[in-house]
Amino acid sequence: MLQLFLIGIGTGNPDHITREAENAIRGADLVLLPHKEDNKAELAQVRLSLLQSLAVASDRVAHFDMPQRRQQGDDYELQVDEWHDAIAQRWQASLAAHLPSGKGRVALLVWGDPALYDSTLRIAARLGLAQEQVHVVPGITSMQVLCSAHGIALNAIGAPFLVTTGRQLRDNGWPRGVDTLVVMLDGQCSYEQVSEPDVDIYWGAYLGMPQQILMRGRLADMAQRITARRAQARQAHGWIMDIYLLRRH
Amino acid sequence: MLQLFLIGIGTGNPDHITREAENAIRGADLVLLPHKEDNKAELAQVRLSLLQSLAVASDRVAHFDMPQRRQQGDDYELQVDEWHDAIAQRWQASLAAHLPSGKGRVALLVWGDPALYDSTLRIAARLGLAQEQVHVVPGITSMQVLCSAHGIALNAIGAPFLVTTGRQLRDNGWPRGVDTLVVMLDGQCSYEQVSEPDVDIYWGAYLGMPQQILMRGRLADMAQRITARRAQARQAHGWIMDIYLLRRH
Ligand SMILES: C[S@@+](CC[C@H](N)C(=O)[O-])C[C@H]1O[C@@H](n2cnc3c(N)ncnc32)[C@H](O)[C@@H]1O
Ligand SMILES: C[S@@+](CC[C@H](N)C(=O)[O-])C[C@H]1O[C@@H](n2cnc3c(N)ncnc32)[C@H](O)[C@@H]1O
Repeated sequence: MLQLFLIGIGTGNPDHITREAENAIRGADLVLLPHKEDNKAELAQVRLSLLQSLAVASDRVAHFDMPQRRQQGDDYELQVDEWHDAIAQRWQASLAAHLPSGKGRVALLVWGDPALYDSTLRIAARLGLAQEQVHVVPGITSMQVLCSAHGIALNAIGAPFLVTTGRQLRDNGWPRGVDTLVVMLDGQCSYEQVSEPDVDIYWGAYLGMPQQILMRGRLADMAQRITARRAQARQAHGWIMDIYLLRRH
Repeated sequence: MLQLFLIGIGTGNPDHITREAENAIRGADLVLLPHKEDNKAELAQVRLSLLQSLAVASDRVAHFDMPQRRQQGDDYELQVDEWHDAIAQRWQASLAAHLPSGKGRVALLVWGDPALYDSTLRIAARLGLAQEQVHVVPGITSMQVLCSAHGIALNAIGAPFLVTTGRQLRDNGWPRGVDTLVVMLDGQCSYEQVSEPDVDIYWGAYLGMPQQILMRGRLADMAQRITARRAQARQAHGWIMDIYLLRRH
């Protein structure tokens, strides 16, 4: 029977990998490795180095090209749906080519943790596997690396926190009843639009990677500085991934 | 100079430990190990087995008894404050006894991740150390093990989720603008009080441990069953730790 392992590998620091992830990668008969047509060469490199460091032979690695998501139209949800279908088809083509018996342990390396703003679980659901055939291995998330790098907690004592996206923050403003927000997937510096008076920001980019950048302070003082630093880093590296925590007093 | 390492060790599954945590524990001159006067002997055992498996010699481990928190009075925040002061004093007494030079690497093992509903960072802040002296090592949280064990994502596509406590849910009801809640620190089965019609619950106890229990389904169908199972397990083991995710359709 096919066993599918969705393995969280953390966000770039190879020491953030867990023993469970290591064992699952070492034990895989096949690792599916997607390639994207963007310039995040460093991210692909992180995965490859990891496989090399775990002595995964190259004939156990199946490379495949990620399909493009259709970008025209207002039907974002449908676009994502089609795109996930297309990715699932590539997985199945790879499996048919490399594991024709349909048996064995197949691994997918997921950035951070598969439960957090990642589509791998949803794509896996398209393969028609039984629940016992899909195994999720948790990994250290960018949210956690943000906090550990800044030496801060996610929550105030006994208080809730909301994990959200840049788009949500832009469209809906500061949500009610919560003083801590973690904002991910924000290509547009949405913190600039926060008008609450007394907010601290803890920002991090390339977390866990050699080029990691951290900035923190009162949002009113830091917003423009972060935006400038972000633009500069993005230009220098050709890409950026960043996340931040906002705390209202 | 003293270097303090707050090390997330996951929630009971020794394979959830990261390389970074392993290295930080192995490299410590001293490990501070708190003992609680409760019957969570299994939890103390997890820590001890971990130290043994990493070959930490017993003369590098400083055991200390956790002080009791004053329980009388309505001043919960002050109680917590005093209690954190008292714990910090025990740490300092241990350090003075075992590391009289005041130099070296000191490790504290934190359940899950130090950023998530944990007081270790706040206690450490009482030692008057410089920021560069405190190092946080992220660990797999109970929230992540809940999701991986159930094979679910934390968020719906592009949607936010709120991480909160049982008390918050009881006192404030279902928060606005969010369809996914992760509820921790709930000794009182607060899901029973949720009156939203169309909610799924994903519940887990003793996550990552041999006695792990998982239950899931429509909240209306499951609430009483979970409460019964919880009471039974708690009686059998003498203690319980549980967490759940609620998703509204
Ligand atoms: C598609 S989500 C994947 C999140 C991932 N599953 C996790 O557990 O962190 C991508 C978003 O995660 C955040 N992110 C991921 N890796 C990061 C890193 N190394 N540094 C900063 N932010 C990161 C950014 O907000 C980015 O927009
Ligand atoms: C004081 S908080 C500590 C959380 C921890 N720092 C983490 O990262 O998961 C304790 C709460 O975490 C959750 N928890 C911790 N370990 C758990 C486990 N093994 N199984 C289920 N819930 C757990 C429960 O909700 C419990 O009330």
